[in-house]
Amino acid sequence: MNQLVNGEWRTDTYETTDEEGAFQRGETTFRNWIAGSDVPGHVDAEPDERFQPEAGRYHLYVSYACPWAHRTLLARSLLGLEDAIGVSVVDPYRDEDGWQFTPEKDGCTPDHLHDSDYLRELYVAADPDATCRVTVPVLWDTEEETIVNNESREILRMLSTAFADLGNGVSLLPDADDDATVADVDEVITDIYEPINNGVYRAGFATSQSAYEEAIDDLFGALDAYDERLADQRYLVGDSLTEADICMFTTLVRFDQVYHTHFMCNRQFVHQYDNLWPYLRDLYQTPGVAETVNIAHIKEHYYTTHPDVTPSGIIARGPDLDFEADHDRERLGGEAPTPTADD
Amino acid sequence: MNQLVNGEWRTDTYETTDEEGAFQRGETTFRNWIAGSDVPGHVDAEPDERFQPEAGRYHLYVSYACPWAHRTLLARSLLGLEDAIGVSVVDPYRDEDGWQFTPEKDGCTPDHLHDSDYLRELYVAADPDATCRVTVPVLWDTEEETIVNNESREILRMLSTAFADLGNGVSLLPDADDDATVADVDEVITDIYEPINNGVYRAGFATSQSAYEEAIDDLFGALDAYDERLADQRYLVGDSLTEADICMFTTLVRFDQVYHTHFMCNRQFVHQYDNLWPYLRDLYQTPGVAETVNIAHIKEHYYTTHPDVTPSGIIARGPDLDFEADHDRERLGGEAPTPTADD
Repeated sequence: MNQLVNGEWRTDTYETTDEEGAFQRGETTFRNWIAGSDVPGHVDAEPDERFQPEAGRYHLYVSYACPWAHRTLLARSLLGLEDAIGVSVVDPYRDEDGWQFTPEKDGCTPDHLHDSDYLRELYVAADPDATCRVTVPVLWDTEEETIVNNESREILRMLSTAFADLGNGVSLLPDADDDATVADVDEVITDIYEPINNGVYRAGFATSQSAYEEAIDDLFGALDAYDERLADQRYLVGDSLTEADICMFTTLVRFDQVYHTHFMCNRQFVHQYDNLWPYLRDLYQTPGVAETVNIAHIKEHYYTTHPDVTPSGIIARGPDLDFEADHDRERLGGEAPTPTADD
Repeated sequence: MNQLVNGEWRTDTYETTDEEGAFQRGETTFRNWIAGSDVPGHVDAEPDERFQPEAGRYHLYVSYACPWAHRTLLARSLLGLEDAIGVSVVDPYRDEDGWQFTPEKDGCTPDHLHDSDYLRELYVAADPDATCRVTVPVLWDTEEETIVNNESREILRMLSTAFADLGNGVSLLPDADDDATVADVDEVITDIYEPINNGVYRAGFATSQSAYEEAIDDLFGALDAYDERLADQRYLVGDSLTEADICMFTTLVRFDQVYHTHFMCNRQFVHQYDNLWPYLRDLYQTPGVAETVNIAHIKEHYYTTHPDVTPSGIIARGPDLDFEADHDRERLGGEAPTPTADD
């Protein structure tokens, strides 16, 4: 694994599996909170008054390929924050130099703020002695000229709380009238992380049969349970689309094209599930979602970036899926996000 | 690719893909025909009077993993030739030394005739200057102490013609009363070879995106067409199970567990086909078939033997398939193989 060590780029630093062959995901390192954010109870942090939520001040760095970055892109789109928060998109192919900017490539952009060649330059600009992995998403502050946060779940919560007033009136969290609470949303996000969101990586990056088998059992056990839960409720929590659905979506939308084959999560396709598949189509068809999904970037990234998994770099065909097919999930009640204000 | 060169084992000999990245399968080299065989019109050979079809004289070398060897095992079982022709089974894991005998391993046997360590020893015994790949199946003659033939399609035809009188009365070819002819069987065997039987390898061993895409198009185009053909006929040719079904079966039974993920033939599973899946179950449930199918050997072989394809050597879980589920294919008429004589 490549990372920064005291501000220098190193390609020889550490293993990503433990002695049992199980994948270990590194911690993210920039964990500031925008002023006015609702910091969840499980997080030991306070909103930082240096970082006021202001339109035009912050910038997101993402890859369309990355499910973590995709969370933040989705929230930005659903909340109508496109004008308030700019976005730069890295190349889906990541070599030994890490994420990079290749504006000539379809769907990619320059680093709109600094015209960097590599994403790691931002990390060093934020902290000249940075020792960390260089990951997306990154929430950048143009005023303090630093990284506010690079943990997707936290950026997601900041967008839906501190930035809510800058958006279109959509909420991605239950409000006071709902039976469901923000704590319920947090519970689901936590519950799906290890077996599902990270579970596909644990399967794909395992270096022992037993670590792989454990990941597969966890993954499909959780998918089976959530498929059942979604039989009679439209969304994961309460009556409306919440952050929990966003966190589920970015894994499910990659599943059949990438995780199933590339990461050998092949007990079944998501499109073979009775409820997860219509649920996925329902979310996909929600206004603001489809334009954040770039299947070409997703497939290119995984199949070409992991030579330890698929050395040929050939991109698997995968099933033809019709995300636009009728899903008939409205029958379960619940409310799709409806903007009440102009973006 | 490893092979014998002038009787010496070499691990550095030749590429298996052409300059366009397309997989090239080497030719088999021992091509004698047992006396009394019906040699197909497209083969330039004559039955060899040295090799009389006699019970107890010949021996098959196979791997349960290999679809080509599986053809011969299936014919031996369906034709009731178990007592007439012995079998030795190699280790499903094949390293740089090629196929080997590891009798201590579940499902494997010693080389019952020579107690060899490696299959290549037989090739050198048959031809001290052999320059060829070392493959299964091998049909060995204990009298001439040589390899009669190592081409699965030809061994299959010898078993169903020259050896027919030594078996149970089942026929794997149309007889004079049938509307279908042996030429029809040959036509199907030829027709499915390149897109389906070899097509999965062309997909899996391609080293360029274009060669992979072409293989996938050929493969699923052919599977789609045969799925349609099997909508209103029980078997591929005429009214009875023939060699053509055997050739289709050994690819289909490996498909969902191996080719789909390992070789990235992932447009869909075979069990998602309306007719191919019941057809596969019908064949599987035919007496004599299930005992030739060793899914553990199949999965171990592919996932551990091709580090260029799956370097981790982890064996993918794959779907849980119920091969014993009702197939309801009898409604289409046609006749399952029925022994008329004792083995």
